[in-house]
Amino acid sequence: MKRFSLNQATTRHWPLPDLVAGCAEAGVTGAGLWREDVQAYGVERAAALIRDAGMTVTSLCRGGFFQQSGWEEENRRAIDEAATLGAPALVLVSGGLPAGSRDIDAARAHVGEAIGRLVPYALDAGVQLAVEPLHPMFASDRCVVASLRQALDLAAPYPAETVGVVVDTYHLWWDDGVWDQIARAGRERRIACFQVADWVTPLPAGVLLGRGLPGTGCVELRRFREAVDAAGYTGPIEVEVFAEEVWARPGADVLREALAGYRSHVAELPAPVEEDDRAP
Amino acid sequence: MKRFSLNQATTRHWPLPDLVAGCAEAGVTGAGLWREDVQAYGVERAAALIRDAGMTVTSLCRGGFFQQSGWEEENRRAIDEAATLGAPALVLVSGGLPAGSRDIDAARAHVGEAIGRLVPYALDAGVQLAVEPLHPMFASDRCVVASLRQALDLAAPYPAETVGVVVDTYHLWWDDGVWDQIARAGRERRIACFQVADWVTPLPAGVLLGRGLPGTGCVELRRFREAVDAAGYTGPIEVEVFAEEVWARPGADVLREALAGYRSHVAELPAPVEEDDRAP
Repeated sequence: MKRFSLNQATTRHWPLPDLVAGCAEAGVTGAGLWREDVQAYGVERAAALIRDAGMTVTSLCRGGFFQQSGWEEENRRAIDEAATLGAPALVLVSGGLPAGSRDIDAARAHVGEAIGRLVPYALDAGVQLAVEPLHPMFASDRCVVASLRQALDLAAPYPAETVGVVVDTYHLWWDDGVWDQIARAGRERRIACFQVADWVTPLPAGVLLGRGLPGTGCVELRRFREAVDAAGYTGPIEVEVFAEEVWARPGADVLREALAGYRSHVAELPAPVEEDDRAP
Repeated sequence: MKRFSLNQATTRHWPLPDLVAGCAEAGVTGAGLWREDVQAYGVERAAALIRDAGMTVTSLCRGGFFQQSGWEEENRRAIDEAATLGAPALVLVSGGLPAGSRDIDAARAHVGEAIGRLVPYALDAGVQLAVEPLHPMFASDRCVVASLRQALDLAAPYPAETVGVVVDTYHLWWDDGVWDQIARAGRERRIACFQVADWVTPLPAGVLLGRGLPGTGCVELRRFREAVDAAGYTGPIEVEVFAEEVWARPGADVLREALAGYRSHVAELPAPVEEDDRAP
């Protein structure tokens, strides 16, 4: 339970003060936040709200989208916001192909250059850039970084404290190379954030909002948690689910189900009780 | 033009005799067929129709779905049908996870065992089994084989004339490892079929019917064709597009557009005309 964090995207329509109160009531101390929501509420005000509730921000989503004009200024603002919130990591969704382009190699090279340009600023701000590989179904329009190996290769030229990676079960579950890459990410000390969502079909149109709460799909979530643990990761475990049907429900109900799914399918199982321990 | 083949799935509602007549009129001599359509028309009758038109069947789709009960009998029937049609390759879509299972490693191991069981029968029939890696968005419900490397690893224990792979641009375009794997597939003489479709977004619900005709999306189709050529592949190039909006149009129109897209985005460009050649 200590490591559980509610990513705000899971309860999208839950106003931030209600989310914070709901988390406090449920004993949840971590939250992953989103820039749009934080900006709407006020960055300083959100930072104070979280801090005053004894909570921490586990990540800020998201920077990236390096194929858009003005990406550098926008990402500097995102780094500033992460610093203000005390978020250790800024999640980078790197963006898809530029309009009309078919040159995915060039788009990937540009992501590498863009990260390099942001590194000094992130270092000054004390924010780790967290390169997130997205599922290959998003490669053209949201993120040309489509595997954990690619994300680690992009991070490799820079210090681990400044450029890390996100391990998100939803994006990576299909990849039989992911276990070796999680071990590598651990050795390179680059796991900035671990996010959990389940894979459910059929996918909806647009495929963005088809994720499932932990336990509702086919991903070996516990295997992923054990793998990041074995790689030395001790940080938060964010439940991050985008789904219209989840969003339609009250935030507190979703949080309850997310916690139940987390306990059953992600967290360490309680050690079996030994006979001797039960004896008086 | 000699290598162009129309996969029947591209013009799904075009009756087989009309498709054959339309291909003849357009100078197209190859067609990839689908079992359901061939069975509905009659396998022997379809074989005669194609043969009498001077055409060849470039592949039969599809065997596989090894997670379904009765897969072995069903795949033997598919091999028989391929042999009757003179199709050199039976495309295998290997199937997803068994109902309720999260064990993708076990499902992949089962695919390997199933292929092994079919090899002697395919060898006798003179049909090459063609393992098709599908896009990872289909990994849970249609095909646990999600990369060309996996498909080649599955094929590796068996003779290349009996187990090959399908290179389909739609499924593989996002993978930066695909170029090395195409070269490997060539060295191992395993490219059984090369299929072309373009990637277009947004994806429709269910994601099966979202493909684009060549040139309508973001895939480097010519780069793929050059890569399979460089790997020594000299076989047919099937245009295989599943899309409701393509299916809604007359077959002959779709064939015309597929040919135009093939010429502009896939085929070798005509050699530039030299000054000297133009002189009388």
